Amino acid sequence: MPLIVQKYGGTSVGNPERIKNVAARVARYRAQGDQIVVVVSAMSGVTDNLIKLAKEIMPLPSEREMDVLLATGEQTTIALTAMALHALGVDAISLTGAQAGIVTDGVHTKAKIQNITPKQVHALLTAGIVVIVAGFQGQTPEGQITTLGRGGSDLTAVALAAALKADLCQIYTDVDGVYTADPRIVPDARKLNEIAYDEMLELASLGAKVMQSRSVEFAKKFGVVFEVRSSLNDNPGTIVKEETQSMEDVVIRGVSLDKNQAKVTLVGVPDRPGVAARIFKALADAAMNVDMIVQNVSHGSGTPATDISFTVDKPDLLKATKVIEALKPEMGFREALSDEKIGKLSIVGVGMRSHSGVAAKMFETLAHEGINIDMISTSEIKISVVIDLAKGEKAMKAVHAAFVGT
Amino acid sequence: MPLIVQKYGGTSVGNPERIKNVAARVARYRAQGDQIVVVVSAMSGVTDNLIKLAKEIMPLPSEREMDVLLATGEQTTIALTAMALHALGVDAISLTGAQAGIVTDGVHTKAKIQNITPKQVHALLTAGIVVIVAGFQGQTPEGQITTLGRGGSDLTAVALAAALKADLCQIYTDVDGVYTADPRIVPDARKLNEIAYDEMLELASLGAKVMQSRSVEFAKKFGVVFEVRSSLNDNPGTIVKEETQSMEDVVIRGVSLDKNQAKVTLVGVPDRPGVAARIFKALADAAMNVDMIVQNVSHGSGTPATDISFTVDKPDLLKATKVIEALKPEMGFREALSDEKIGKLSIVGVGMRSHSGVAAKMFETLAHEGINIDMISTSEIKISVVIDLAKGEKAMKAVHAAFVGT
Repeated sequence: MPLIVQKYGGTSVGNPERIKNVAARVARYRAQGDQIVVVVSAMSGVTDNLIKLAKEIMPLPSEREMDVLLATGEQTTIALTAMALHALGVDAISLTGAQAGIVTDGVHTKAKIQNITPKQVHALLTAGIVVIVAGFQGQTPEGQITTLGRGGSDLTAVALAAALKADLCQIYTDVDGVYTADPRIVPDARKLNEIAYDEMLELASLGAKVMQSRSVEFAKKFGVVFEVRSSLNDNPGTIVKEETQSMEDVVIRGVSLDKNQAKVTLVGVPDRPGVAARIFKALADAAMNVDMIVQNVSHGSGTPATDISFTVDKPDLLKATKVIEALKPEMGFREALSDEKIGKLSIVGVGMRSHSGVAAKMFETLAHEGINIDMISTSEIKISVVIDLAKGEKAMKAVHAAFVGT
Repeated sequence: MPLIVQKYGGTSVGNPERIKNVAARVARYRAQGDQIVVVVSAMSGVTDNLIKLAKEIMPLPSEREMDVLLATGEQTTIALTAMALHALGVDAISLTGAQAGIVTDGVHTKAKIQNITPKQVHALLTAGIVVIVAGFQGQTPEGQITTLGRGGSDLTAVALAAALKADLCQIYTDVDGVYTADPRIVPDARKLNEIAYDEMLELASLGAKVMQSRSVEFAKKFGVVFEVRSSLNDNPGTIVKEETQSMEDVVIRGVSLDKNQAKVTLVGVPDRPGVAARIFKALADAAMNVDMIVQNVSHGSGTPATDISFTVDKPDLLKATKVIEALKPEMGFREALSDEKIGKLSIVGVGMRSHSGVAAKMFETLAHEGINIDMISTSEIKISVVIDLAKGEKAMKAVHAAFVGT
């Protein structure tokens, strides 16, 4: 009898009618004889309302108390979902994160799962009962309520699937799966039947935010195969799993465009050891998330100097330039330039490893469209370029056509 | 250092502003050096909204899941109250019923407290931390979430006060305390400085609903002295405690009028053994709460027959008459009459035991006002009469003036 873990996000359980739809789907699987664990998020809007309430009390509430507060969101959904299954005559029971045996560390609002004791869940499943688990939450060994932070419900589902040795883990969302590109920009984008963990990770970190990286990393670490699919229809979704031989036949799995980056360039940085370290240490100390970093070789006459460019999240740009300006006297660079009007275009695919000329083909495609490349950065399975934001979507379409086809 | 348990009801924590007011009061006590446990209810309206959500899913939801759902109400309040205390610079921590060590039986939606393990609460108090406990909830020894039913938050406060051997237990509400009569009806009503448990119990069961009987019973059983007072001002409230010698000097502690009863009279019931048992067994089986029962001696000629009257809660009247009609063929009574237009007027006081002529004085007072008495029922410390509902308030004022004065 297959054991399935299904996760439904806030939109899928956004009101009583939608909760009934979720219950109907679960009931269909149950009727096939599957053992089912359902992980649910808070109803959409509920978490925001709780945060608003807290802010009315105090601008910066204690993280421990935020966890106590926010955990009520998922607790509400599990009870309602269990009721909806009862209404269909399906035996079901709700469990909070703590009751489901999800033990975390004590880092409130972004706790890490330490271990899962699935004894209780197993016993209920064996008794033929559908188990509804509150996503996003757990408890410390001392019994403190914790939450897992962004993407926490996906993580609960993947971790439970690992602990229960589930046969299938389904992440239900409002899209049909993972696409070769954002279909709103590239109408020819195709839904992928499968994708490797590493490709999914690169796409997640590149702004194709179907899922947060941490859940994919967790799934990779514990070998949890999962399917991203829609709660609005019965179409098969995208299977995310370990890379297979056949995956390498496809050079590029997907194309993504991140419009949320900004670029900072330090011009005329004296070329001596420790310079880069000093800059990026200062940015890290300011909790700035730096993405691409490009440094060219020294050039010019006189004292050797270089240009260093990097990208940060757009909302962090002002903070980043302040950090950089403060370093100017000490570092002695000529000037700092910043540019918000950039887009980061990336192609991702494990097939890159065994295919040559991928970068060249990407650059040629862009050149053919008359698009200038600002920065380049590559990993084993990814090539990213920074280009003019205004030409981002045009570039994305061209690169998608070149690699994925129309 | 005195240990105080304070309980705030749903209205007192109904919005962020009111929660801040509660925090300000707690902070004032804390500044005096008191150790404080705060028990809070769900914000007013929250529980009703959750029930409404559940009903949209299923008309008769599982009681276990209702408990999981409703427990989120108080959990929300404890987190917000802790935050409000933090905002005032007061060290505070929230605990769910389970975390506070409140262990109950497994009767969902109306669980009974089995025991309280106050170790954790004690440790926090000793560390100088204000402890905010979710009222109305607990957990079974197996870790199931339970709720205590109506008046549950009061019960949590009283039970915690007993377990912690608190020096004071304050029940904050929207009235100044317990009055000699409902001040909305009797303008001369006076706030009582003190009242005996038994008097409070009689008043609670008589519709002067400051508190549910079960919390008063619990307090009596464990000798918890508590104060009923207002969260809107700093007036001292009413102390509820074991009867003392001096209390007997006051003949009548209070006068109450219950407008929510209806009367059923069975006329011509054959007078043979087991008749009353048969009737009230049938009503009990239908979960009907019968209050007063009056049976007169047989009268008339021929087969001895009697009239039996009883009162039930007004909403139960239809159900009660159906039960009674079904018994008619078997019992052979002549007819069943019912009357919704009654009021039950009661006087309560432990001083009655040592003072004679109390009943006579009450009946005379009513006679003087031209008010007819329908039924009479007495206990050691209470006299109740059923009268015409239309004359209820007039009767109440007259009896209050006769016994309590103006």
